[in-house]
Amino acid sequence: MPAPINVTVWSEFRHEKTNPTVGAIYPQGMHETIAGFLRGAPDLAVRTATLDEPEHGLTGSVLDTTDVLVWWGHKAHAEVQDAVVAKVRKRVLEGMGLIVLHSAHYSKIFQALMGTTCSLKWREASDKERLWNVCPSHPITQGLGEYFEIPAEEMYGEPFGIPTPDELLFISWFSGGEVFRSGATWRRGHGRVFYFRPGHETYPTYHQAQVQLVITNAVRWARPTVRLPDACPNTPPIEPSPAG
Amino acid sequence: MPAPINVTVWSEFRHEKTNPTVGAIYPQGMHETIAGFLRGAPDLAVRTATLDEPEHGLTGSVLDTTDVLVWWGHKAHAEVQDAVVAKVRKRVLEGMGLIVLHSAHYSKIFQALMGTTCSLKWREASDKERLWNVCPSHPITQGLGEYFEIPAEEMYGEPFGIPTPDELLFISWFSGGEVFRSGATWRRGHGRVFYFRPGHETYPTYHQAQVQLVITNAVRWARPTVRLPDACPNTPPIEPSPAG
Amino acid sequence: MPAPINVTVWSEFRHEKTNPTVGAIYPQGMHETIAGFLRGAPDLAVRTATLDEPEHGLTGSVLDTTDVLVWWGHKAHAEVQDAVVAKVRKRVLEGMGLIVLHSAHYSKIFQALMGTTCSLKWREASDKERLWNVCPSHPITQGLGEYFEIPAEEMYGEPFGIPTPDELLFISWFSGGEVFRSGATWRRGHGRVFYFRPGHETYPTYHQAQVQLVITNAVRWARPTVRLPDACPNTPPIEPSPAG
Amino acid sequence: MPAPINVTVWSEFRHEKTNPTVGAIYPQGMHETIAGFLRGAPDLAVRTATLDEPEHGLTGSVLDTTDVLVWWGHKAHAEVQDAVVAKVRKRVLEGMGLIVLHSAHYSKIFQALMGTTCSLKWREASDKERLWNVCPSHPITQGLGEYFEIPAEEMYGEPFGIPTPDELLFISWFSGGEVFRSGATWRRGHGRVFYFRPGHETYPTYHQAQVQLVITNAVRWARPTVRLPDACPNTPPIEPSPAG
Repeated sequence: MPAPINVTVWSEFRHEKTNPTVGAIYPQGMHETIAGFLRGAPDLAVRTATLDEPEHGLTGSVLDTTDVLVWWGHKAHAEVQDAVVAKVRKRVLEGMGLIVLHSAHYSKIFQALMGTTCSLKWREASDKERLWNVCPSHPITQGLGEYFEIPAEEMYGEPFGIPTPDELLFISWFSGGEVFRSGATWRRGHGRVFYFRPGHETYPTYHQAQVQLVITNAVRWARPTVRLPDACPNTPPIEPSPAG
Repeated sequence: MPAPINVTVWSEFRHEKTNPTVGAIYPQGMHETIAGFLRGAPDLAVRTATLDEPEHGLTGSVLDTTDVLVWWGHKAHAEVQDAVVAKVRKRVLEGMGLIVLHSAHYSKIFQALMGTTCSLKWREASDKERLWNVCPSHPITQGLGEYFEIPAEEMYGEPFGIPTPDELLFISWFSGGEVFRSGATWRRGHGRVFYFRPGHETYPTYHQAQVQLVITNAVRWARPTVRLPDACPNTPPIEPSPAG
Repeated sequence: MPAPINVTVWSEFRHEKTNPTVGAIYPQGMHETIAGFLRGAPDLAVRTATLDEPEHGLTGSVLDTTDVLVWWGHKAHAEVQDAVVAKVRKRVLEGMGLIVLHSAHYSKIFQALMGTTCSLKWREASDKERLWNVCPSHPITQGLGEYFEIPAEEMYGEPFGIPTPDELLFISWFSGGEVFRSGATWRRGHGRVFYFRPGHETYPTYHQAQVQLVITNAVRWARPTVRLPDACPNTPPIEPSPAG
Repeated sequence: MPAPINVTVWSEFRHEKTNPTVGAIYPQGMHETIAGFLRGAPDLAVRTATLDEPEHGLTGSVLDTTDVLVWWGHKAHAEVQDAVVAKVRKRVLEGMGLIVLHSAHYSKIFQALMGTTCSLKWREASDKERLWNVCPSHPITQGLGEYFEIPAEEMYGEPFGIPTPDELLFISWFSGGEVFRSGATWRRGHGRVFYFRPGHETYPTYHQAQVQLVITNAVRWARPTVRLPDACPNTPPIEPSPAG
């Protein structure tokens, strides 16, 4: 039996404490709901970390033993310390997987890895969202069929200010008339990054089966194959010098 | 007659003052050699900026009137102020072109736009470099033929820690036995970015005709098509609400 | 003044003769409507060719003097001779641009260049189509703004069986609930290929200003930079043999 | 224990019978050497097929039960029947993996899936080849380290007439002065395609451990995730008609 994939689910855990609507949907916090369904997978070993813990719960030893990090943030992006962002980025470049959820498109860590601002259009008006599966052979889309719907969600619309994805997996249709690249992957260094759009805090999105399936598939897809430190070495020639 | 393309050539201008070898090759500085051959193109309006000027010569008004920025840096990357890097990055995302030369693979601005460290192997041993043109139909490779050679250069070797390029234009062969993706492009926001490997300060690389042709072609390719500010707007629906 | 871009607009020219609805919209044929607005551009020299001409109007001398070929086909894909397809493909690989319109997603030439079947979902039910511009800095999207609408069109839906585009320019929203990658580019050999979705024969789509702008922009973008014959040469070494 | 991956290794099996040098290196044929090392992997179920069998050994039932097809061809590409090529292509688009080796760059099946001629430079002069691993985190490159060498091989040089790879894994350095994209992947439909350069028939390349490791890794990477028939369905709307 192979070693489990070590997953750390990170969340701000702020809305849940101040907005009763959010607190009712996610009584233990969004991170615990996400960690909860991931714990149902026997190959995953799951823990959580939140903004208000020391070092945001992402100490060196936590990151060192994390294979895949799941990230949800929204209103407190600016409170995430730059030093922690730098450590997370270094771990991704060494091979750690990163799953970026919803409003974390504007997180420091996602912007730092993309090199862009990741801006978009948005609207909080309970749009119907239909996510079309445009890559049915990808490990992340297994078990979903041609599309799935979320009855009410925040709208995110194009243009989405991201670099060209390595792989485009989902395109969303919104009832208000917009479209969005809702699932996409990129390699950064030796790590795999997946952005997945759904998950506004005032809707029960992370309780929906298809959303849970995508995130579970994504965690497995993003597990590291290597861990290689970053280096820029001075190297001797392999071939003899022509004058030698 | 169309308006000229406004080009700003930026360089550290340090090696030239302290290393007599470099000073002999580039008496007015590398930026002046590069600006000099670009000034031979009637469609380009060229100025220069250097590290030790106020704001590194890259004030708001300079950046506002720059269509394409050429960047060479090496030993003083750390001295470039973060605030200037942020302004340059913002302008690229709005549409400004950026040509990144040689050791600027490790510049703050290139790393910030790529999202990676852009590490590589290197060796200062006067390797012969042969750049193979792997995209003969690209505007940047026009006039070059199948390959060109630089008789002596610093070696840069794979793996090169960049995101997958949008377009790969050159692959270098080195006499010491290495290969390198020596010319590549990426879109970032509305701006175009081109990385071009050659140009170690102790060799007369920027006096070579083919190197000058690539940089001139690249400046024209990177000229802005749009200038759009970054925004993340709250937007009303286009379609009527189904319940409306 | 530079030489004009030589454009050949090819169409089946069948529906127009047998379906009065189509004949009323395109009395001289769709190719003449498309050629007509392209002729309004002073830098383009435009002619047409149709299926029922000898060699489908695409003789060697026509192809030899065509810079960009525009292709519309629908019900008679199978009647296009394989020998003509092979000649067109060869010219694209040598550098000729190709603009593939609407139902030509299933043409022999597009399938031959993509390597896939280019299947999709479809529905003839006068859906509203809204094309979102997801690459505002691309030459093909200049002058369009954030999106444009076609009041009634055939629906094409994902998954679209194409290889990953080099560049994704448009994503369509349909009133019936689907999305589609409606504008995309690929390099094939030395030629540029652009697929553009709109243009079902029973709607006046090619009379719409934004559609005409996209096609005109695309023709300019697809113009050849080189013309290089295909070859697989036996080549002597550049470096001396180590044993030599 | 999961079901094994069903691998079919296809080869021309001609050189081995007519050229004593080749026959001495591959007495049972190249396909048997390749099948032999793959049979060492407990998760693979391996059979072979060759050109001179009926239907080239690739009957409908063989293809139906093949998860990954390995293809080596050289001097008899033209003898492969178009009907068999069409069946293989259909199976790849439905999900079957395809590993294309060396001179099969010019096979009908690879050209049909790429959409290009896949031309290149070549030289039979026992060049030293060094394959640099430019994607150390990819499943296909696991266990290889930074590079590996083949002491004597046919040279293949750029430009290589392929579409932009989805993933570039290896770049070769040749002692004669050339470079080549020696390992690359593409999705086509629901199938995964990997091209791997080494393997000229007059050298013992497929007896080399690193080459065997790459091919074994590639077979596992290319196994199907889905099997979906090609279709272009007329589909009813999901959303109610606005006029409904």
